[in-house]
Amino acid sequence: MAMKIIEGGVTAAVGFEAAGVEAAIKYQNRKDMALVYSQAPCQAAGVFTGNVVKAAPVLWDKEIVAHSPYAQAVVVNAGIANACTGKQGYECCRQTAQKAGEALGISTDAVLVASTGVIGWQIPVEKIVAGVDRLAQAKAHTPEAGLSAVEAIMTTDTKPKQAAVQIEVGGKTVTVGGMCKGSGMIHPDMSTMLCFITTDIAISRALLQEALSEDVKDTFNMVSVDGDTSTNDTLVVLANGLAGNAEITEKNEDYDKFREALHYIDETLAKKMAGDGEGATALFETKVIHAATKEEARKLCKSVVCSSLTKAMIYGHDANVGRIMCALGYAGVDFDPEQVDLYCEAGGHRMQICKDGMLTDYDEEEATKLLSAPEVSVIVDMHRGDAEAAAWGCDLTHEYVNINADYRS
Amino acid sequence: MAMKIIEGGVTAAVGFEAAGVEAAIKYQNRKDMALVYSQAPCQAAGVFTGNVVKAAPVLWDKEIVAHSPYAQAVVVNAGIANACTGKQGYECCRQTAQKAGEALGISTDAVLVASTGVIGWQIPVEKIVAGVDRLAQAKAHTPEAGLSAVEAIMTTDTKPKQAAVQIEVGGKTVTVGGMCKGSGMIHPDMSTMLCFITTDIAISRALLQEALSEDVKDTFNMVSVDGDTSTNDTLVVLANGLAGNAEITEKNEDYDKFREALHYIDETLAKKMAGDGEGATALFETKVIHAATKEEARKLCKSVVCSSLTKAMIYGHDANVGRIMCALGYAGVDFDPEQVDLYCEAGGHRMQICKDGMLTDYDEEEATKLLSAPEVSVIVDMHRGDAEAAAWGCDLTHEYVNINADYRS
Repeated sequence: MAMKIIEGGVTAAVGFEAAGVEAAIKYQNRKDMALVYSQAPCQAAGVFTGNVVKAAPVLWDKEIVAHSPYAQAVVVNAGIANACTGKQGYECCRQTAQKAGEALGISTDAVLVASTGVIGWQIPVEKIVAGVDRLAQAKAHTPEAGLSAVEAIMTTDTKPKQAAVQIEVGGKTVTVGGMCKGSGMIHPDMSTMLCFITTDIAISRALLQEALSEDVKDTFNMVSVDGDTSTNDTLVVLANGLAGNAEITEKNEDYDKFREALHYIDETLAKKMAGDGEGATALFETKVIHAATKEEARKLCKSVVCSSLTKAMIYGHDANVGRIMCALGYAGVDFDPEQVDLYCEAGGHRMQICKDGMLTDYDEEEATKLLSAPEVSVIVDMHRGDAEAAAWGCDLTHEYVNINADYRS
Repeated sequence: MAMKIIEGGVTAAVGFEAAGVEAAIKYQNRKDMALVYSQAPCQAAGVFTGNVVKAAPVLWDKEIVAHSPYAQAVVVNAGIANACTGKQGYECCRQTAQKAGEALGISTDAVLVASTGVIGWQIPVEKIVAGVDRLAQAKAHTPEAGLSAVEAIMTTDTKPKQAAVQIEVGGKTVTVGGMCKGSGMIHPDMSTMLCFITTDIAISRALLQEALSEDVKDTFNMVSVDGDTSTNDTLVVLANGLAGNAEITEKNEDYDKFREALHYIDETLAKKMAGDGEGATALFETKVIHAATKEEARKLCKSVVCSSLTKAMIYGHDANVGRIMCALGYAGVDFDPEQVDLYCEAGGHRMQICKDGMLTDYDEEEATKLLSAPEVSVIVDMHRGDAEAAAWGCDLTHEYVNINADYRS
């Protein structure tokens, strides 16, 4: 059986339940707390923000992932990020985990926590604790419960983001599903990225962490909305082993299959975040081909999707070749500009806009039409080797300024 | 005599002439070419874009600064950047310099050239050559001629930017003046930064270059509008020695005086660029104090002024402490967030908004009033040492998006 894309998200895999409830932590009259729970203990792996200023939940989760024997639940709130909150903020995480442990009948150190929202405010502990109780009662192993959870963690997101796939491992059906919120790694304040992936595969913790750490380099770390790395970024995978496959403990064919499934979920969720970037009207992809090394390919395409000027150009539907060349030029890669070819692509149409580092005689009207699509790609051919990479971002719009010039309330 | 701030720009120093004329290279009905000319041969020093994609004039000027015995003129055009233009672009530089040499009676390799505008287009050589003739006729050693030159090099700039000072060196009055255009290092397409500084001081070329290279680290390299490093960035200093001081050939008191004067011109012009950033409504300064090292201080304050989210926050007049802490956190400096204090400052008023990494109980209304000033500073006290640095940027506004989503025409 090849990889099969299915409906659903964090509750797609065997033994995973979820819930979303209203806790009125900051938002009123909307769901703002979510729970992901596994009926069996899980191997947990995580990657977290590289920001020196780490939110309290990030500090808490790093401890759990590194030192707890297993994890079994994640409690998430939207509205307040619990960052720059000192000892009181960390104590709030501990109390949340303790309460969840009691309500779910698991130990405190099996509970991960995550927050997204305004930095600097303290979370009202009594509200989050009350929310945990309701989450524990509401949790269910249904698609509706999964959707309820992903809706509860949205901030400036305009769409809930989830994905799920099935693969076959050692004769057993294995499911990998995930949900995320946010519009970049790469977005503080109201738009941290949080992502939770659940799977029923049996795999060792070391290999689960390795698979995750490797895959984010080509997926979540290649997304940019505004270049701001949040204090709260969190990506956690929980694997409960209920699929019944023989535990994966080495890099064999089964491992490769899981890597492929995980990659699909990571890339799908990463692209959904980029396309739903704050104020975005288009998903903006840059692919670099024929680069000398993978690392070089990543740097080059990320530089293009991060440039304010290429982003504004996508918003204006303007094939401004110079801005793309310029962003490639300051990516930190030494190359000969006169070897570079550029193409635009959308809806299956591709047109060359630059050859040997100079503009082609392309049709401006056609280029404008192409750049008006909701998903636009720029392809950069470096003519230097065999490596390639892709990065995803979005356009820079008036609405982005509206959202971010607005008051915190 | 202490340093004296005077009126004028590139024509303030003895023996320097300038002109601005209409050459219709791209713009119509406005000046678009400028000349700076020295009656005597000059020591020349320059710093140029770090972008791998270098415009043809940058390649030309680097040769002149490195290998010509002296320089005596600069020819500048606005409208087309002459970048990504291959051999034809470089040949255009050569013909421009050759024509200017003939018209001014100096050698071709004493002529620097610079361009700003759309990347990827070829400059119509016949128009630029015709412009050179008119510039040579119009040049004059007057404040009006200096103003005419700075007006001719503007693109999206809303104000001409120039500055001049006088110092006394060995009993002689020495003048340093300059003009620039652009809104960052840090701005391609229609907004390259170009800066030309003239002085009548006598100084060795090695020391002139050293003074310039050192000073840009704390001035022009600390300015950001949008993080995009242009293909054309050029900063040139011409020193013709006509002040009559004994030539400075070592780092003595005279050198220090010149450094101070040069620093004033560099910082003044750099701040003018930041405050006139595309679409900007405010000059946004960040000062880092009590950092462990100078390099660390520079990284931290530059990260804050470069963040899209702090820039949008200034536009919204919103004291969003979390965004500032977040930008400090991903600056690439390892520090303890709980040691950090933050202040806002404008019009002589200062208020603390963060103590020990956590929000103070500041008055929001007062903060909003303070952040509505046309020049706003954020002061970051790291409590780690004695180093400090400042960086300058501007707010991110709807008008920035308008300007950059617009078509190239």
